[in-house]
Amino acid sequence: MNTYGSPSNVGPDAGLDTGPDAGPSAAQLRTGRPTGLYTDQYELTMLEGALKSGAAERRSMFEVFARSLPDGRRYGIVGGTGRFLEALANYRFGDDELAWLREHDIVDGPTLDWLADYRFDGTIHGYAEGEAFFPGSPILTVEASFASGVVLETLALSILNHDSAVASAASRMTSAAAGRPCLEMGSRRTHEEAAVAAARAAVIGGFFGTSNMEAGRRYGLRTLGTSAHAFTLLHDTEEEAFAAQVRSHGQSTTLLVDTYDVARGVERAVRVAGVGLGGVRLDSGDLLTQARDVRAQLDSLGATSTKITVTSDLDEYAIAGLAAAPVDSYGVGTSLVTGSGFPTVGLVYKLVARQNDDGDWVSVAKASTNKASVGGRKFPIRRIGDDGHATDEVIGVGSYPEVTGRTRDLHVRFVDDGRIDPAYVGPEAVSAATSRRAESVGELPDTARKLQRGEPAIDTAFVAAR
Amino acid sequence: MNTYGSPSNVGPDAGLDTGPDAGPSAAQLRTGRPTGLYTDQYELTMLEGALKSGAAERRSMFEVFARSLPDGRRYGIVGGTGRFLEALANYRFGDDELAWLREHDIVDGPTLDWLADYRFDGTIHGYAEGEAFFPGSPILTVEASFASGVVLETLALSILNHDSAVASAASRMTSAAAGRPCLEMGSRRTHEEAAVAAARAAVIGGFFGTSNMEAGRRYGLRTLGTSAHAFTLLHDTEEEAFAAQVRSHGQSTTLLVDTYDVARGVERAVRVAGVGLGGVRLDSGDLLTQARDVRAQLDSLGATSTKITVTSDLDEYAIAGLAAAPVDSYGVGTSLVTGSGFPTVGLVYKLVARQNDDGDWVSVAKASTNKASVGGRKFPIRRIGDDGHATDEVIGVGSYPEVTGRTRDLHVRFVDDGRIDPAYVGPEAVSAATSRRAESVGELPDTARKLQRGEPAIDTAFVAAR
Repeated sequence: MNTYGSPSNVGPDAGLDTGPDAGPSAAQLRTGRPTGLYTDQYELTMLEGALKSGAAERRSMFEVFARSLPDGRRYGIVGGTGRFLEALANYRFGDDELAWLREHDIVDGPTLDWLADYRFDGTIHGYAEGEAFFPGSPILTVEASFASGVVLETLALSILNHDSAVASAASRMTSAAAGRPCLEMGSRRTHEEAAVAAARAAVIGGFFGTSNMEAGRRYGLRTLGTSAHAFTLLHDTEEEAFAAQVRSHGQSTTLLVDTYDVARGVERAVRVAGVGLGGVRLDSGDLLTQARDVRAQLDSLGATSTKITVTSDLDEYAIAGLAAAPVDSYGVGTSLVTGSGFPTVGLVYKLVARQNDDGDWVSVAKASTNKASVGGRKFPIRRIGDDGHATDEVIGVGSYPEVTGRTRDLHVRFVDDGRIDPAYVGPEAVSAATSRRAESVGELPDTARKLQRGEPAIDTAFVAAR
Repeated sequence: MNTYGSPSNVGPDAGLDTGPDAGPSAAQLRTGRPTGLYTDQYELTMLEGALKSGAAERRSMFEVFARSLPDGRRYGIVGGTGRFLEALANYRFGDDELAWLREHDIVDGPTLDWLADYRFDGTIHGYAEGEAFFPGSPILTVEASFASGVVLETLALSILNHDSAVASAASRMTSAAAGRPCLEMGSRRTHEEAAVAAARAAVIGGFFGTSNMEAGRRYGLRTLGTSAHAFTLLHDTEEEAFAAQVRSHGQSTTLLVDTYDVARGVERAVRVAGVGLGGVRLDSGDLLTQARDVRAQLDSLGATSTKITVTSDLDEYAIAGLAAAPVDSYGVGTSLVTGSGFPTVGLVYKLVARQNDDGDWVSVAKASTNKASVGGRKFPIRRIGDDGHATDEVIGVGSYPEVTGRTRDLHVRFVDDGRIDPAYVGPEAVSAATSRRAESVGELPDTARKLQRGEPAIDTAFVAAR
């Protein structure tokens, strides 16, 4: 059921190297579905042009970064790196893809031959998934021939823009929830495959689990879900519906109590399930008032341990607004999967350096007033103050920055001459990213967790070699 | 490479009926990937509860509708119906899916057995893809056993919410473009599979073509694309880059002229390619001023037939703002694939009627102040005035509405006792939807095409049987 690169295809031995050392991993990665056509046509026409001009083999450095954070956000969270690496392992052009490109005359014969043999053999560094990022942070750098790197633009940006948007929104929500579990239930509000990726990104952003079954299966996430109004309406009475659910799911289930009248729903729920009822869910109305009323009613009925879950059009602001309400968990849908107003985080994929005919690196950048980028290879570090909080981000341009005091390297190596580091793919990478996000956000100054619009939580400086 | 339901798997003979009459079509549809886990857990727990309570086989009517249009929009465009039907043909639970559900104790044994045998055998009516819709329009109605219908909620909503959001935004953009071609190039700003669906929905909304290769292959869409700044920066000079592109793609290619200096870029482009150069692309700066300057420069150089394409952060308002500029086509990215501010259109999937133990239909609806729905089966028609423009939408509740004058039925039958009508799936359905959208929007009063916020273009009335 995976679109591409099932995690099981990119296990501990996965690599892109198809040479003699790769052995089983090369065979393993071929079992995924080809992802070569997740590509914009201009990448293929640039490839053809470069193959013709002779510049295709020039060693090049491409960089993924955001020019700014979405309006007033204090930080972003890198999401999607693991998915990108899994897709990269399957970035190739099978017979179907090549036949279509040929029939539609998209590129010429030599370019088709080049695509047929494509296996990424370059090196990729970047911010580990779950890491906080800021404007200009080089969250992914691809070093390869121009030809090998240029074709990855759309694949990298599609995945990183989407998943980072959701992970960034999720992180704000879980901060606002201040320890109460957040539950991802937005699948119905986004594309069916994007929903799977969104669930994964939400968990990286600190969500407890997801309602999405495929996300649970593919990435080993906790799943959850009880019932909708339809289940109550199906039965002749609310009691019958509650009784049916308790019969099949036990007393620990969560009953949806707002189909008819909340107070009567709560009373029936406790009568049917007993005071040990697991939880009740509120999905409409003024949640602040209702949560207080329902908590009082549950307590008066003796159901003091019954939890209250709320789920109606929540975002980080609504969650913060319920901080004083007796709510035990938040179910978040639309706002989460659409990045809470910013469904994409503005990441771009730019050529920042390439070699000339003598093999020397040349920094390159578009000369434009409103789309500035910094040429050259980047070496990013985060500086940590005496109190353990990050103070700023320093990005060496062309060489490692010379700074004093405590620092933390931000770039890790994902791919080395075509071989993917297994630490960054598969379900384990999701767990690692979840922990990393908590640490990275925890390391930021307190201003980072403000919901109000403002400047990035820390400054970023680009430092060129002296 | 398809996620599910390749159009080729849902050809003219495709059906869901697995009985003796179905023959080849049943085998055909099984070649798609299972889509059963594109489902929220609560649908499966409701299924289990209903199987236990005995209500699972109650004949039920589920309806997809929007409570309102996104803020101030005048109409919406139905998108995704064809993709939903293709996914429905593959909605089943294979060994992998069942094993995962069993291992994680999501549902009990009898429910697993029921899922293993699942083939949708109900009937589905709805608005044909490309049709305009309004608040309350029943764009999809699913009539089946409760069990068969309840599990489709997430699949239906994921697809229809996403694709309708993009088709609706696209329609506003192509109206604003007033005949100039709009080109979809947003793949880098959305999930990689959502990008494929977005390209399809954009074309339904009137876009000329897409940069997305997989969308071209899967749905037979026109594709296009030339080069990015990276191609210019790769070469030692802009001239070399232009010459390489013209050598490989011919004089009719479109050259990106704003990497360094637009005026010099245009001069070099014409010098290298000749006055027969196909086009130039502007991707930054003040497009209105630049387009005028570039047009004047091209004309003065004799390149009077060279086209100008603009592509920088356009939405329907920016497109409208360029109406007086000498622009020949618009490339639209982020705003299109994210629904121009509304990445989901708020469609919900509700149980509106179900039979009781006597086999009588009972209308049902949640009693809630802010989430009202109208119970019962719907029969929607659009009334057409003497001038050929739609005047209002009338939705019969429980029976066909009794109205006079010229009318148009809005419901078509997509699935009849499990058999999918081939007219509504595959690449041909996309072409049909493209035409339908143009006709349906053309039929609306002129206010429909206003970009300013306002009321829906026509009113909707619910009429109950007398």
